[in-house]
Amino acid sequence: MQKQKSIAVVGSGLVGSLLALYLKKLGHEVTVFDRRPDVRKVEFSGRSINLAMSNRGWKALEIVGVETEIRKLALPLDKRAMHVNNKPLYFQKYGKEGEAIFSISRGILNRKMINLAEDAGVKFRFEEKVWDINMEEAKLYTGESEKGEWEEYNFDLIFGADGAFSRIRHKMQRQSRFDYSQHFIDVGYKELRIPANEDGSHKLDNASFHIWPRGKFMLIAMPNQDGSFTCTLFMPFEGEVSFESITTKEKAEKFFGEFFPDIKDEISNLKRDFFRNPTSAMVTIKCFPWTFNDKIALVGDSAHAIVPFYGQGMNAGFEDISVLFDKIQKFKDNWQLIFEEYQNERKPNTDAIAELSYRNFIEMSSKTADPDFLLRKKIENRFGEKHPESWIPMYSRVTFSDKPYAEALALGEKQRKIMDEVMEMPNIGSKWDDKEVENKILKLLAQSE
Amino acid sequence: MQKQKSIAVVGSGLVGSLLALYLKKLGHEVTVFDRRPDVRKVEFSGRSINLAMSNRGWKALEIVGVETEIRKLALPLDKRAMHVNNKPLYFQKYGKEGEAIFSISRGILNRKMINLAEDAGVKFRFEEKVWDINMEEAKLYTGESEKGEWEEYNFDLIFGADGAFSRIRHKMQRQSRFDYSQHFIDVGYKELRIPANEDGSHKLDNASFHIWPRGKFMLIAMPNQDGSFTCTLFMPFEGEVSFESITTKEKAEKFFGEFFPDIKDEISNLKRDFFRNPTSAMVTIKCFPWTFNDKIALVGDSAHAIVPFYGQGMNAGFEDISVLFDKIQKFKDNWQLIFEEYQNERKPNTDAIAELSYRNFIEMSSKTADPDFLLRKKIENRFGEKHPESWIPMYSRVTFSDKPYAEALALGEKQRKIMDEVMEMPNIGSKWDDKEVENKILKLLAQSE
Repeated sequence: MQKQKSIAVVGSGLVGSLLALYLKKLGHEVTVFDRRPDVRKVEFSGRSINLAMSNRGWKALEIVGVETEIRKLALPLDKRAMHVNNKPLYFQKYGKEGEAIFSISRGILNRKMINLAEDAGVKFRFEEKVWDINMEEAKLYTGESEKGEWEEYNFDLIFGADGAFSRIRHKMQRQSRFDYSQHFIDVGYKELRIPANEDGSHKLDNASFHIWPRGKFMLIAMPNQDGSFTCTLFMPFEGEVSFESITTKEKAEKFFGEFFPDIKDEISNLKRDFFRNPTSAMVTIKCFPWTFNDKIALVGDSAHAIVPFYGQGMNAGFEDISVLFDKIQKFKDNWQLIFEEYQNERKPNTDAIAELSYRNFIEMSSKTADPDFLLRKKIENRFGEKHPESWIPMYSRVTFSDKPYAEALALGEKQRKIMDEVMEMPNIGSKWDDKEVENKILKLLAQSE
Repeated sequence: MQKQKSIAVVGSGLVGSLLALYLKKLGHEVTVFDRRPDVRKVEFSGRSINLAMSNRGWKALEIVGVETEIRKLALPLDKRAMHVNNKPLYFQKYGKEGEAIFSISRGILNRKMINLAEDAGVKFRFEEKVWDINMEEAKLYTGESEKGEWEEYNFDLIFGADGAFSRIRHKMQRQSRFDYSQHFIDVGYKELRIPANEDGSHKLDNASFHIWPRGKFMLIAMPNQDGSFTCTLFMPFEGEVSFESITTKEKAEKFFGEFFPDIKDEISNLKRDFFRNPTSAMVTIKCFPWTFNDKIALVGDSAHAIVPFYGQGMNAGFEDISVLFDKIQKFKDNWQLIFEEYQNERKPNTDAIAELSYRNFIEMSSKTADPDFLLRKKIENRFGEKHPESWIPMYSRVTFSDKPYAEALALGEKQRKIMDEVMEMPNIGSKWDDKEVENKILKLLAQSE
């Protein structure tokens, strides 16, 4: 057991409430502040992408003893369902037998996590806005407005779990020698919904992650337990087919009808949501350092927001907490060392998943129609089937393992270099399935050991 | 003449006062705000690196008619003076006959620029702190403290010329889809001074930029008109030889004595300044967009702070103003178009000079002792002497031309690729000065046309 500390967690989102639960179970006094209302008492925002919980997320939940509870909220998806125009629906398994990602509604999970933390004794202060902190003394200031009267709180430690636009990080950023970047992509997203059938059943296969790839834009759908699907439309903000260009109900009707004919019965729902829900931006945020002395630390999106195209945002945030817990086990009451090793271990790994997520975005938006890219993937897949021990697909390494993200990125680099050489083989397009290609890859793999 | 506008410039530094002068001469009402005291009435900060005015800077001054005035403050430097340990002092010409950079004290130039702007009718409001702006309506808020009472000003346009830690940019950064990065290097700098001889003459050659390269750290010295030199010590913050490690007068004495034996008479001055002057950090800042509607624009460091290793920070900022003036000539009263073309033209060029400046830092800190790197430079120089039209050195392209920085960067890439191939030639170390190498470069240049 650690020496009891009085700890503030700023942000009651998924990572904030998980951290609060961990800290409470370690014996600390924990207060969670959130500027927004209690998510258990308000309607959902209509700007969420469903979550895909995978190994790293489950591990962090298991350590703190709530995995079983959360499993009840999730639906396993063991494959992609590809809705490609002018082709029958087809499926791609995610991994080996028994491997799956799990679809959970962000809002439902968040409500549950807050309940679990509250039941464990965590105090929540909703609709209380944190405007500033004193980093040296772990004081925290809240109030109605930035210019109004503030209340001062004294803590021993403060955690910033307040998301991509973190106020706590904002304060840390004013230090000299604080590295920071925010980079937005030119694609936005919008939440849409396909409701359940009248009998409560799902309208599409509910063990699949549904994808309608359309080149510059893409629709995805993930099932909920109530029979509905949460869909996300990813599309450029500006340009010919873009959020900016679809300005009327007629244009929206034409858009959905033309590009998504296999769900044309849903057009009226999709169209209604299209104009009701906000269009959101996506950003990659990196910074360093994440901690200050033994007083302040950032976790989750406030330290490393990523684009959602690898389904790892929440998993990476949850892994922050299990790594932090590791360091607590190792260094006991020395929070300075806990924080130092936490940030030094996590930083290269969250940089790696940021890079992988961004590359997936580039792949999806510019390469899915590139014949060379598709040939490359076909060769990789065939080789991976024949030699599963020698060629672990990147996706599996990221999703179905808890080995460091940075190792997955390095593995991907190694595979890329090998495939670059394979693609240089004469007539590769016609002989891609020949023994010669397989042997070449085996040889290159042996050389790279 | 443009339609008269009421314009605020935030920041009375070099770029802010130059911009104010331009705008005033275009017929506008111009008010400059600065949170600091009038630089004409206070002692200098002891944290400045002398400026190296080159072609882009002079051009911007010439257009607005003050070049001749400023030339009087500057000393031409046509060469580097290399103080390498255990070698006699040697010189490297910067460019062709008549090409030079010009050393000016930042403080003295700033005082002069403010005088010139004030004489032209620009209003200055010193020690007035800007805390916020309303971007849509070009309102500006000032006050004693962030939380105290604020005064509101109405303008037609607001320019942020308030440096690397710009308050105006800080406000723009709160917009969604605003890209931003700040990256600090692990080397800091400190201003030191070598005073004049008793008769007012310079203690070192006053037509040279003096450099003492020492691997991980470096001292430079630039002459002032009063006979003194402003020196800058660049050194890691932490590590074996670092600002952190030199903690006592004895250690400082040993440091200067050991590494700078040819100026050992100056040790007492250098040592005194070492402990009196602050150690400053260096940062590269990038952002986009730089403008908002026809209301707000960033200029100089607030839009693109760079590390000082190419001597182009002020020159790039002054070039912002001459480019802005180009756009004003072109689009007259359409400030929306002026701002759009200004930022779109400048952004790739300031990104390029940021990259070039950072690479110079890397070169200086890690490559000056690398024999391959030195051989490469030797081959380039020899070829450039023989074929001056075919091989314009990067430094000259950046410093002695006003062609876009991005073109200089592209030229540098082309040269790098050619030199990569040259360095692969067998026995290049022994035959580097042979006709074979010269012919190889000529051939590669012809291929790259």
